[in-house]
Amino acid sequence: MEKENQTDLVTIFIISDSAGETASKLAQASMAQYPTVEFCLFRRTFISSSELLLKALKDAKNENALIIHTLIDPKLSRIAEEFCEQAGLFHMDLLNPVVNEIERRAHIEPSYEPGALHHLNDNYFKRIKALEFAVKYDDGKDPKGFLDADIVLLGVSRTSKTPLSLFLANKNLKVANLPLIPQAHIPKQLFQIDPKKIVGLTNDPEVLINIRKERMRAYGLNPETAYSDRDKIQAELEFANDLYQKLGCYVVNVANYSIEETAAKIMTALDLEDHSYYFMEDSDDDE
Amino acid sequence: MEKENQTDLVTIFIISDSAGETASKLAQASMAQYPTVEFCLFRRTFISSSELLLKALKDAKNENALIIHTLIDPKLSRIAEEFCEQAGLFHMDLLNPVVNEIERRAHIEPSYEPGALHHLNDNYFKRIKALEFAVKYDDGKDPKGFLDADIVLLGVSRTSKTPLSLFLANKNLKVANLPLIPQAHIPKQLFQIDPKKIVGLTNDPEVLINIRKERMRAYGLNPETAYSDRDKIQAELEFANDLYQKLGCYVVNVANYSIEETAAKIMTALDLEDHSYYFMEDSDDDE
Repeated sequence: MEKENQTDLVTIFIISDSAGETASKLAQASMAQYPTVEFCLFRRTFISSSELLLKALKDAKNENALIIHTLIDPKLSRIAEEFCEQAGLFHMDLLNPVVNEIERRAHIEPSYEPGALHHLNDNYFKRIKALEFAVKYDDGKDPKGFLDADIVLLGVSRTSKTPLSLFLANKNLKVANLPLIPQAHIPKQLFQIDPKKIVGLTNDPEVLINIRKERMRAYGLNPETAYSDRDKIQAELEFANDLYQKLGCYVVNVANYSIEETAAKIMTALDLEDHSYYFMEDSDDDE
Repeated sequence: MEKENQTDLVTIFIISDSAGETASKLAQASMAQYPTVEFCLFRRTFISSSELLLKALKDAKNENALIIHTLIDPKLSRIAEEFCEQAGLFHMDLLNPVVNEIERRAHIEPSYEPGALHHLNDNYFKRIKALEFAVKYDDGKDPKGFLDADIVLLGVSRTSKTPLSLFLANKNLKVANLPLIPQAHIPKQLFQIDPKKIVGLTNDPEVLINIRKERMRAYGLNPETAYSDRDKIQAELEFANDLYQKLGCYVVNVANYSIEETAAKIMTALDLEDHSYYFMEDSDDDE
């Protein structure tokens, strides 16, 4: 409660022996809980020596920062712990509690390799290929991609097809997408694939109307064009929903959901798991 | 050390009130330390009630799982803590230590909104736009994009231009990329932008030769084609390096680095920060 006027700014230091992605994710999730607080986030990445680490820790101390660290080298993580304890700094060792528990269970030492998550292994290259696949088969560019895809996303304009495809590609899933326009021809490949691989994206008419009006304004055009016309949007959605029913595919309404949330729903519904890093699938024995 | 033969499989439960992205990242980073251990990963996402939570916890107990949870509701996180303590299950509360420390410093309560990270706020929509920008201006499709881009990536074939563009787009950066081929015309827009926005990607000739041979094999073609010809690759790299020098841009060799690592290097070199979630920049007062 002391120095009430100095508490507006919270400083967070991420200290990592690799790119700092795990700690960043946690920092971002935590900061998102405080939309009115001003944060200052420092990232000290690729910290590979005690010299670099001590410099980062001293800088953090000078800023009276909260520290989140991912250091797989036991010597480095010990230095961080001891420094923070002595300096009375809040610190969270993100990686080692889980890594140590796995060691206790598997009776195997960790590889102690910084950034092992980013190893250029088969899974990594599959992910790169999945991202390239998503770009290649975005926006109905080539319906032949449907035949190779793990997921085919269908949707009217502004249902997040592109970012959703890319997000799922990051989970090592090959995703193609097709925009639906009532007049347009539906490629025959759509009827040649397992409908369980198809996802129909839909949205609330009100949301679409607002998005499209915004878009028209951004282009400096009159927002009251046919693009945002209620009847037209209704017709587009009906056309899409009819097709979804005909295909018998999973349908998800993206209104008010982020791509992360929509992706999680799709993966659960299609019984897909994140194939990007691990080796076994979620088993089905949870009734 | 008991039951040595049962220790091969380690089960991890991710329990989250949202999409479980933060806990997944930690699980993946931890699992990556044990390339020979078999893991079984369960994701119980959008856990919004004590009933759902208790079901997930009981399932985790049945699997003798290690639990990583992100539950912002204090009631739910307390249930998880108490259940795990009683059942003697390893558990890591990922979110609350940092969230509580921020509260202590800022004297403000968290919003307690699950998945606040995924709020459909301005930053979210900027990220969506950045992803769409990256797809639109991928592969030199339209050099006019260079004028609007935060970063323009240049590189010969197989220097990860596309996935790197997408990864940086996820940090809310607008990225265009241009493949470099000696014969090709260099768009004039490249000379109209600040060279500090340009990144030249290069690679070791040996790495490129191997990648391209693999590619030829994957296509069922003879790997000893001009595409993998050493002199040709050398000429391509020289052409690229000459251009980089002429532009005076930052150059990064992607050999042996993942896109995450390359992206972290680029962001440090160009003094860019992850704009996807937070509000203030890394200040420069750390000499």
